[in-house]
Amino acid sequence: MTEQELKEQVLTAVLKAKESNPLTPSITNTVTINFVANAQLAVGGSAAMIYLPDEAEAMASIGGSFYINMGTLLPVYADTLPRVIRVLKDNNKPWVLDPVGIGVGGLRRSLLLSMKECPPTIIRGNASEIIALANLWELDSGITKDGVRGVDSTDSVESARKAAVAVARFTHGAVSISGEDDLITDGRHTVILKGGSAMCTKITGAGCSLGGVTAVYAAVASPFVAAVTASGVYNIAAENAQKTCFGPASFQVAFLDNLYSITKEQIANSVICVETEAL
Amino acid sequence: MTEQELKEQVLTAVLKAKESNPLTPSITNTVTINFVANAQLAVGGSAAMIYLPDEAEAMASIGGSFYINMGTLLPVYADTLPRVIRVLKDNNKPWVLDPVGIGVGGLRRSLLLSMKECPPTIIRGNASEIIALANLWELDSGITKDGVRGVDSTDSVESARKAAVAVARFTHGAVSISGEDDLITDGRHTVILKGGSAMCTKITGAGCSLGGVTAVYAAVASPFVAAVTASGVYNIAAENAQKTCFGPASFQVAFLDNLYSITKEQIANSVICVETEAL
Amino acid sequence: MTEQELKEQVLTAVLKAKESNPLTPSITNTVTINFVANAQLAVGGSAAMIYLPDEAEAMASIGGSFYINMGTLLPVYADTLPRVIRVLKDNNKPWVLDPVGIGVGGLRRSLLLSMKECPPTIIRGNASEIIALANLWELDSGITKDGVRGVDSTDSVESARKAAVAVARFTHGAVSISGEDDLITDGRHTVILKGGSAMCTKITGAGCSLGGVTAVYAAVASPFVAAVTASGVYNIAAENAQKTCFGPASFQVAFLDNLYSITKEQIANSVICVETEAL
Repeated sequence: MTEQELKEQVLTAVLKAKESNPLTPSITNTVTINFVANAQLAVGGSAAMIYLPDEAEAMASIGGSFYINMGTLLPVYADTLPRVIRVLKDNNKPWVLDPVGIGVGGLRRSLLLSMKECPPTIIRGNASEIIALANLWELDSGITKDGVRGVDSTDSVESARKAAVAVARFTHGAVSISGEDDLITDGRHTVILKGGSAMCTKITGAGCSLGGVTAVYAAVASPFVAAVTASGVYNIAAENAQKTCFGPASFQVAFLDNLYSITKEQIANSVICVETEAL
Repeated sequence: MTEQELKEQVLTAVLKAKESNPLTPSITNTVTINFVANAQLAVGGSAAMIYLPDEAEAMASIGGSFYINMGTLLPVYADTLPRVIRVLKDNNKPWVLDPVGIGVGGLRRSLLLSMKECPPTIIRGNASEIIALANLWELDSGITKDGVRGVDSTDSVESARKAAVAVARFTHGAVSISGEDDLITDGRHTVILKGGSAMCTKITGAGCSLGGVTAVYAAVASPFVAAVTASGVYNIAAENAQKTCFGPASFQVAFLDNLYSITKEQIANSVICVETEAL
Repeated sequence: MTEQELKEQVLTAVLKAKESNPLTPSITNTVTINFVANAQLAVGGSAAMIYLPDEAEAMASIGGSFYINMGTLLPVYADTLPRVIRVLKDNNKPWVLDPVGIGVGGLRRSLLLSMKECPPTIIRGNASEIIALANLWELDSGITKDGVRGVDSTDSVESARKAAVAVARFTHGAVSISGEDDLITDGRHTVILKGGSAMCTKITGAGCSLGGVTAVYAAVASPFVAAVTASGVYNIAAENAQKTCFGPASFQVAFLDNLYSITKEQIANSVICVETEAL
């Protein structure tokens, strides 16, 4: 796969999402739920957020894909998540997991452990979260101790490469690590995406909403291309937003505006480095 | 009722809400809860959001009106909603229902069914939701199958006119359908409001917050005038916001700014077509 | 303590928060949860929001401080709040309480009553809320009946001075009252902060997010200095935001932008009147 071929697939995914307006339901945290929905709408998706088990099952069966973000768990998640994951598996629907908060609390641990049996199509997290998930699933992360601190990462993206490749090979899907550079792998191909903006770390929800947008693209593209597309358009929108903003709040406004207006030329000019993983 | 008379009532409602700062509690979804509260504040209301049954009862009894939005149901709603609706009825308080998500899940269905006995003063929804509600209540919608898809409408506003009139006649209140044009009816008078902006479909919560603002006006005006006022000022604010925005997020910011600054002249220049329904 | 000395401590707290990025977990309402998180990030904190008891205990034990806002209670709070408050006490962690909604509902009443045994380090509220809390705890508020209406205050800041001093002397912490002027006291020293903007009353969450930011500073400064620092930077950011905004939504964006960019000179030029309370 060349950079040029990948960019054509990215452009196709961007256009398909805008044309087909895929229904992309989410179970996601209350902190950034509005940002997730607005980001999904900005790229062409239709958002619908759910808490109750039977509603999640219904939406999972009619949605084009699904997004599960593990932040701000509520008691009802103990019922809802196992049931929706089962429906997603039975219906062969692509879904995206953001394992935010991994390491905190018993319910999150048991839910994430159980996902080893019904694995997500795409996992998006920061470096520390991907290392922690590989360790929780007893895959070879190359690092025995992750550096999760609350919702923040203290590990570098590159240090989580081995964990990402191991997880992607296990799930037969894609893993997407967000950081200064982004790393996305399907276990065989790995891409490094340059660009973006450090302002993304000054607002809450850049990662959460990236997961939600990845799910929109997962309804219209392969897991790997969906993950690359989402990170690619995020980097473009963030770079442009940084040029005009006065601080984090105007950055977020400009970011969403730019996300809505991604152009073919911007995608053509973005930097996506394609590598092949050693087996 | 002439257009001129109606506009005078709209202006009176706008001014009364600003002067009297009506307390307008809400039970509303977590996706757009912040937008609802800020929109209510922008038009002069005082917002207070609730989940627990006894809190809802207490706030319903002291509020000037109430807003119930059926998005993102939580388990506690099974207790809270029946109790608050009973208090609203016993205290003769006006309240607004947004039946978002109608058709998804057992709890939403049973709650919406039960509201036939204690009907809302104003119902605000998209065309598909109003058709679905008329069908759920076994009123004559003229269409046996609604086009709800997740939270989106696939029916035209005009196609839901019969359903809206039937529901309004049943509730003795008002029904407000949002769409490219808006249709508001009390079962006898129907108005079509032109204007607004297609950008409202590119952000989450335009409809939810319109319901919340309708509830603010319901504390100071008749159900029909409250619904017309809310849609009227929304259309004005949206049209003005569209002129200055760069995308959906700056649209939302400009929209709320404009909502806060509605003028007498803007109301006088808006387009409200008054029709009379055939019996 | 002179105004000059206090301003130096404020500047130190502002810089320390930016340098040390304190983890400041919160249990806070769903209406303004995003604003709270973004405000905490803007001043240098790391935000993490929680509902479940064991997660709250875990985060409380690793956080530098904690924020508890009593808005939009959910059933799980009945388990979570007593447990987290116990861990905060056992670990001697500073924490900030916002008693929003005081007077509404049985759970809120019993939780606030129980906090008399495990008191918060800093209490931030509007005038009516502080009077109501002093009365709930049977301290001398000087006023037997508070003017809480929903989430709004109908009492003046000055009228709540006696209540604030009584509460601060009881908790051996600080009390911060927000209003046109702000009043902060540790029971011995009281400061009045001028400035700010009336636009803060036109958006939801100015008070909630001030509580969250106070908690960030409580991780790096004494309770009294943390409260003064938070209100001080809020007043500066609000004043500057008012100069460039077009309405409440652009005010909020500009406010967060300015909060992120507070300068030494702005702090030096702010007005903080230091008084000593009569014993």
